[in-house]
Amino acid sequence: MPVLDFWYEFASTYSYPAAMRVEALAGQSGVTVRWRPFLLGPLFFEAGWRDSPFNIYPVKGRYMWRDLERICDSLSLPFARPDPFPQSTLLVARVALAIEERLRPAFSRAVYDAEFAKGRAIADRAVVAELLSEIGADAEAMLGRAESPENKAALKAVCEEAKVLGLPGAPCFVTESGEIFWGNDRLKAALDWALRGETREEARR
Amino acid sequence: MPVLDFWYEFASTYSYPAAMRVEALAGQSGVTVRWRPFLLGPLFFEAGWRDSPFNIYPVKGRYMWRDLERICDSLSLPFARPDPFPQSTLLVARVALAIEERLRPAFSRAVYDAEFAKGRAIADRAVVAELLSEIGADAEAMLGRAESPENKAALKAVCEEAKVLGLPGAPCFVTESGEIFWGNDRLKAALDWALRGETREEARR
Repeated sequence: MPVLDFWYEFASTYSYPAAMRVEALAGQSGVTVRWRPFLLGPLFFEAGWRDSPFNIYPVKGRYMWRDLERICDSLSLPFARPDPFPQSTLLVARVALAIEERLRPAFSRAVYDAEFAKGRAIADRAVVAELLSEIGADAEAMLGRAESPENKAALKAVCEEAKVLGLPGAPCFVTESGEIFWGNDRLKAALDWALRGETREEARR
Repeated sequence: MPVLDFWYEFASTYSYPAAMRVEALAGQSGVTVRWRPFLLGPLFFEAGWRDSPFNIYPVKGRYMWRDLERICDSLSLPFARPDPFPQSTLLVARVALAIEERLRPAFSRAVYDAEFAKGRAIADRAVVAELLSEIGADAEAMLGRAESPENKAALKAVCEEAKVLGLPGAPCFVTESGEIFWGNDRLKAALDWALRGETREEARR
C-alpha cells in the first residue's frame, strides 16, 4: 500500500480541515497516511517572517479566514477563530512527536478540534493534559516524554527535514517518490499521485 | 445565467491553466465568465514586494514551478518557463482591457500560450501585434487604443477595484454575491458557489 506523508503544523489554519479528512480520503484511495507534525516557525524565520504571513499581509489574512469558514461549512466542521492567532504550538508539536504512532492521529485531531472548533488555548499545559487523557494516554508521562531533551532534539531534526525537503508551508502531502503537494485543496491530487507511483512500481515487478 | 468574474494577471503562473480551462468548465456548469484582466504589481507594491513573491521566497518559487509543471501535464498543456520571470505585463494588460469583449478571451489565451507554452517575450510590441493579428484584430488600431490616456486610466481604475475587493493574488474568481476564490485549484468551488447563488435567488422569485 502506498504511503503518503502528511506534514502539518498545529497553528496552520488549512491543516485543520486536512487533518480532519485525510484518513477517510486516504482510506477510500487505499493509501496509508504517515502523520508528520512539524513547526513552521523555523521555516518562516528563514523567510524573514516573525509572525504568521496571514497577520503580516492582512489582505491574505482576510481572504484566508473567509475561505476557511467556507471550507469548514462545506465539510460540516465546526469553526471558531483562535484568539490570539497563531497559538503557540511548541508543546503540542512535541507531544505529537513523542506520542505512540497509533495515538498520533487521535491526539492531533483532538488538538485541532480544541483549537479551531472550541477556541481553546492549546498552548496551555492543562488543556493538553486533558486532551491526552481523553484519548486514553497517560498525560503526565507523555508530557514528560515530550519535554525530554531527546524529544526536543527529535523535533528540531524533523524541522530540519522539512527545510531540506523544501516544504513551502502547511499542510503538505509528500509522496514516497518525493512529490510535494501544498494545501488542503491538493489532498486529492496527492493521493492520485501516490497511487500512480505504486502502479508504476508494481508494473516493474 | 450566473456570472463569474475571472480576475487574471498575465505574469501570474497559475492564471495560465485557469485561463485555458475556465470557459470549458464554466460552460459545463452553465456559468458565464467575465474576463477581468488586472495587474498584481500595485497590490504587491502595497505588501512591500518589488518582485514576484516566487522570486523573493525561493522555497515557494521552487515548489510553484514543479507544481505548475504537474498541473500543465495533467491538463495536457504545453509548458515553457518564461525567462525572465516575471515578464512585464503592462502592455498586454492594457490591450486586454481595450479590446472588444468578444475578442478578450481569445487574445488572453494567445498571450498565455505565447508566454507559458512558447516562451515568447510578451512585453515586446511586435509580438503583441502578431498575436492581435492572429486572432483577427486590427493590431495597430488596438495598440493605439490600448495606449490611449483613457485606457491607461481605465486600467488604473480596475487595479483600484481589485484592491477594494481585497483580491489576495491571481487568478481569482469572484461571484456576483462577492465571494472570492483564489487559485486555479479553486475554480470548481467558485463555479459551485456561483450556481448555488443563482439557485437561492431563483427560489425567492
